[in-house]
Amino acid sequence: MKIIRTKEGMREWSRSCRAQGKTIGFVPTMGYLHQGHLSLVEEAARAADEVVISIYVNPTQFAPGEDLEVYPRSEEEDLRKAQEKGATVGFCPSSLYSEGYQTNVIVEELIKPLCGVSRPTHFIGVATVVTKLFNIVRPDTAIFGKKDYQQLAIIKRVVEDLDQGVTIVGMPIVREADGLAMSSRNAYLTEAERAQAVALSQVLDLVRRATKNGERASHVLRDMALTHFKKFPLLQPEYVEIRDRETFELVTEVHDRCFIALAAKLGTTRLIDNSELD
Amino acid sequence: MKIIRTKEGMREWSRSCRAQGKTIGFVPTMGYLHQGHLSLVEEAARAADEVVISIYVNPTQFAPGEDLEVYPRSEEEDLRKAQEKGATVGFCPSSLYSEGYQTNVIVEELIKPLCGVSRPTHFIGVATVVTKLFNIVRPDTAIFGKKDYQQLAIIKRVVEDLDQGVTIVGMPIVREADGLAMSSRNAYLTEAERAQAVALSQVLDLVRRATKNGERASHVLRDMALTHFKKFPLLQPEYVEIRDRETFELVTEVHDRCFIALAAKLGTTRLIDNSELD
Repeated sequence: MKIIRTKEGMREWSRSCRAQGKTIGFVPTMGYLHQGHLSLVEEAARAADEVVISIYVNPTQFAPGEDLEVYPRSEEEDLRKAQEKGATVGFCPSSLYSEGYQTNVIVEELIKPLCGVSRPTHFIGVATVVTKLFNIVRPDTAIFGKKDYQQLAIIKRVVEDLDQGVTIVGMPIVREADGLAMSSRNAYLTEAERAQAVALSQVLDLVRRATKNGERASHVLRDMALTHFKKFPLLQPEYVEIRDRETFELVTEVHDRCFIALAAKLGTTRLIDNSELD
Repeated sequence: MKIIRTKEGMREWSRSCRAQGKTIGFVPTMGYLHQGHLSLVEEAARAADEVVISIYVNPTQFAPGEDLEVYPRSEEEDLRKAQEKGATVGFCPSSLYSEGYQTNVIVEELIKPLCGVSRPTHFIGVATVVTKLFNIVRPDTAIFGKKDYQQLAIIKRVVEDLDQGVTIVGMPIVREADGLAMSSRNAYLTEAERAQAVALSQVLDLVRRATKNGERASHVLRDMALTHFKKFPLLQPEYVEIRDRETFELVTEVHDRCFIALAAKLGTTRLIDNSELD
């Protein structure tokens, strides 16, 4: 596995790779890899000749007071795990922003609801750094997890709106045995919080089952979720919303192109989860 | 000369061009070409193996009430002239924006002063369409005129901040015999307005001469400009400003990295001009 630490080195590798007619699959991450990330690497290896994984904790997607300084890191182990799953290049830049940096990629509507309410600058940082990474790595295909459902929709929109020419693939959420969606931030949970974190996936199961049994009214499904959350005293719900998968508009009646998304805090740790509804 | 009218066609040509190891020079225009544009094509032909000129009147860089509907067009003649100067591909898309389009490239600071005051959305449209065109054409080098000095600075900033990997070249302003900077919008001027349009380049000459003779105070140079403009009753100055070429900050004392920029209306036609000051 080749480790590249500069933009110039990454560009050069990409250019020579394309000159040989090889395709590039790309998995952008902030490191501290779990099985969810590794499933993206495996998919990239199926989709392309070469697989680049980037490990970069992007400062512009954290707001002041968020967890930038304490975000967990394990680069050496990350690279080893990624290589096992088929990554051929690890791109680990020390910084991506030059002096006087002042340009952002802004998706006007999709960044506003859900996580955009409590993190109003987060998706601007994400869209911008992904655009930068795409311009440096020049992949044919890039793989993202559906756990960050809003992020995935935003990136698809940016690729289409700015004609970036990258195929975006979204992969299913990978879960722990009890249903908790894998996340690097799960490492922040105390034992007691970890036990109650199961509430998020339980709520998704409840709502999915209720819709299968014919319940269509969003407000009923939402109340059901909030009632279940009340059984978990350490958990503070932030939002529970059912929206259209394409437009992200709120729906009053569930139809077959919806998803339910939720966010909750356990102590100082913010967790998100979601499920498409059919 | 090859004429391409779709994004897909342009992408395909670019891909096969790069696969042959050829470099691509690019001149993005809104058509109605004059000698200024053609000097950019000539430079692109010097810089690269293939030369793409795009002709696209970009709606997002016009505000409501501006001249989008009447912007002059002469595609056939444009393509003939561009070919004579070395263009090998004319990219003339009918539209570049897809349904649901909502992503913009925003340069936070550089878009605010000068033309940004009266045209607050203009440079967002420019930065976004140039980003789209770069992603479709994938040039090695792109050539812009220094007449749109603020635009050139913004595009350089976008390329650096988003790691677009395109070399940006700025070419000198091309002028009519009496000094008027060439512009497609000069076609809007009545005979009487055209006679008074010479005021802009005269003011630049005056200020350049004064600085050469030792005058450094911006407010003195600015007063000199505004006094000269008063001799032209059809002309309404919009701004006369001396700023730093890199940071675009206003300067009180002229130094050797400044420029003077001006905008004025003659009837309904808005003209701009500028000069670097040494």
